[in-house]
Amino acid sequence: MNATELKKWLGADAAGDPTARIVRLLSQKGSLSAAEIARELNLAKSTVSSALVGLRASGMVVNAGQPAVRPQVGTGRPATTLSLNPSAGACVGVLVCDNYIRVVMADVSHAILDEDRCEMPIDYSPEAAARATHALVKNMCKRCDVRHEALLGVGVAVPGPVRPDTGQVLRASVVPTWAGLDIRGPFEAAFDLPIFADNESNCAAIAEMTWGAAVGFDDFVYFKIDTGIGGAIVVNRRIVAGRAGGAGEFGHMSVNPSGDLCLCGGRGCLELYAGFEGVLRHAARVHGPEISIAEVVGLAQSGNVGCRRLIADAGEAAGHGLALIGTTFNPPLIVIGGRGALAGELVLAPLRAAYERFALIKNSEMPAEAQTRIIPGAFLTNDSGLGAVGLVLRYHGRLASG
Amino acid sequence: MNATELKKWLGADAAGDPTARIVRLLSQKGSLSAAEIARELNLAKSTVSSALVGLRASGMVVNAGQPAVRPQVGTGRPATTLSLNPSAGACVGVLVCDNYIRVVMADVSHAILDEDRCEMPIDYSPEAAARATHALVKNMCKRCDVRHEALLGVGVAVPGPVRPDTGQVLRASVVPTWAGLDIRGPFEAAFDLPIFADNESNCAAIAEMTWGAAVGFDDFVYFKIDTGIGGAIVVNRRIVAGRAGGAGEFGHMSVNPSGDLCLCGGRGCLELYAGFEGVLRHAARVHGPEISIAEVVGLAQSGNVGCRRLIADAGEAAGHGLALIGTTFNPPLIVIGGRGALAGELVLAPLRAAYERFALIKNSEMPAEAQTRIIPGAFLTNDSGLGAVGLVLRYHGRLASG
Repeated sequence: MNATELKKWLGADAAGDPTARIVRLLSQKGSLSAAEIARELNLAKSTVSSALVGLRASGMVVNAGQPAVRPQVGTGRPATTLSLNPSAGACVGVLVCDNYIRVVMADVSHAILDEDRCEMPIDYSPEAAARATHALVKNMCKRCDVRHEALLGVGVAVPGPVRPDTGQVLRASVVPTWAGLDIRGPFEAAFDLPIFADNESNCAAIAEMTWGAAVGFDDFVYFKIDTGIGGAIVVNRRIVAGRAGGAGEFGHMSVNPSGDLCLCGGRGCLELYAGFEGVLRHAARVHGPEISIAEVVGLAQSGNVGCRRLIADAGEAAGHGLALIGTTFNPPLIVIGGRGALAGELVLAPLRAAYERFALIKNSEMPAEAQTRIIPGAFLTNDSGLGAVGLVLRYHGRLASG
Repeated sequence: MNATELKKWLGADAAGDPTARIVRLLSQKGSLSAAEIARELNLAKSTVSSALVGLRASGMVVNAGQPAVRPQVGTGRPATTLSLNPSAGACVGVLVCDNYIRVVMADVSHAILDEDRCEMPIDYSPEAAARATHALVKNMCKRCDVRHEALLGVGVAVPGPVRPDTGQVLRASVVPTWAGLDIRGPFEAAFDLPIFADNESNCAAIAEMTWGAAVGFDDFVYFKIDTGIGGAIVVNRRIVAGRAGGAGEFGHMSVNPSGDLCLCGGRGCLELYAGFEGVLRHAARVHGPEISIAEVVGLAQSGNVGCRRLIADAGEAAGHGLALIGTTFNPPLIVIGGRGALAGELVLAPLRAAYERFALIKNSEMPAEAQTRIIPGAFLTNDSGLGAVGLVLRYHGRLASG
């Protein structure tokens, strides 16, 4: 079993074929039972069964192992689930941050093979990012016995809006010198593979909908509380990208038009009040300039009233911002991601209270089935890296052409 | 040609059949060329041609007359367009307002047959609304020579959120005593026809996407400036309803958490600053309590500086609110509807300036194809009534079962 075989099934010629659709679906979803496949693809069970006979015979589809990422839920004996053959191909996900790069490698059965990271100098170039990623991936391939030919693509999660049509990083990126550049270019040059790029919060939402807190939801809002505030909107299982890639930029909603200046050039942006950069700045006065989000959360959890208040205030500001989004969208689910959510109820309780106060549709007035659930994400510290892998698993079938 | 024939094609048994899909598409869209039909349904031209032979022979499909609602655009000799036979069926759209009811009747070729309205007493019941509508429709049928059997359904546009699963009107309606009621019930009792209910702004968005300013766009935001502020979100040509029907309630975004109390029970809601109720309240001090939106607009257009300022301030507030939505969605198009848009550039210029100032993605930094266009709607005074008809034309195929 090798990647050439897989790419054949994902090729344009096979687009309408039930077998190709099954391969594509398993790539997106990881593992599914035959009944789930039939339901998802709206195919007759007999059609799915006969296609699976061929796919099993060729070794392309195998019985799934324990789900590698997706947590096992429910009880009782589960139906046999199927996945693509792990040896049929692997994907790389990269998260580029202001001072480090993180890489995740997974096979097409959705098993995580390896993770690694490296520090980067201030204001590094996209070419340096691509070179550093390539070096990390080369070592990973050696460690995991994956040949370069088995790689299907690289997903790049960028901390800023990415234009869906051109791959250009917009000005609001954390690495401002990258603005206007097609981020895929340097990575294509380094890897000679299909490159997929998206905003890091959109990637995080893909991780949550593929393996995490949003599995089973067609529509949801992902809201990331980290040093800044990010987000994503999912409608009918698709990320809403926005005309220029700017959808889901919740952190830059101007909630206070006469407020302080934000790095984006706006005033009174939500992330000034709800982001943990502000929390850290205040906490640093008492606890020293090196204090981290995890340490502030730890202090709050062990009863420090100052850290508790800082976290509660951030949660309240986030809840007000989310209420604006809620009054716009009225989603069934809001997933709170990012390291801020590590504070659990210390941040979620004031967030939920502010949402209830400021949203038009109040959960307290609605029966359970019409309420908006607000829950923490499943991957608070590595959602974007996982999602960058998910980007490839989700979309590589649209590009590959043999 | 009669409605029984049409209902057969729209029945569940014929769901996958190309002929049925063509009938359904023409019901939704009004008139299309054969090439447009093939493109929209992703069918081979030969398949469309042979299905059309049958549909023309039976009289179900005819050459379209002049577009009744949709404005003729472009130049050059247009391709022959087709529509459903006008005699195959008719639809009713009703807009229920706080003190009047408005009814529109159209045939399935999308020609408007008649319009009418009647005044209603304060706090009238839903049963009274259904009875009054029935009386208006009875007269219309007589005037237009339409038999009751030809009616396919009634669309009801409600000035408040409507739960998509239950048809229940939520508390935020302008007729508060209707809260919790399935608005379809009284109309079903009066008409014995399929009833479709939705929020009036969602209906207005359907009118704009079917015949108006949003034709050809898959995604857009509809923003209504009238006495209050309403709106709708369209993603991939579908209205985003929201879990409880509360999506698009832009007027109740709490833009000033310590602001004045709103009728909805919130504080500092956008419609307090951007709605024309506030404009009228201020204008009334100088021009008398009976002044209307049209009169304020007329005064502003003839140079009255007070009315100009009131309208500009409302436009600026609307632009700030829209920038919050824009930073969330980054849509390719925003359509400004409602009677406030009758003021044209007097309201649109300050609105666009505030949007540019407060949105993260600035049009001035984007090439034309990545910008957010902000344009007035095509149906400022009757969009919701037309959209209520559109609701039936769009959805009746999903219900009819022979």
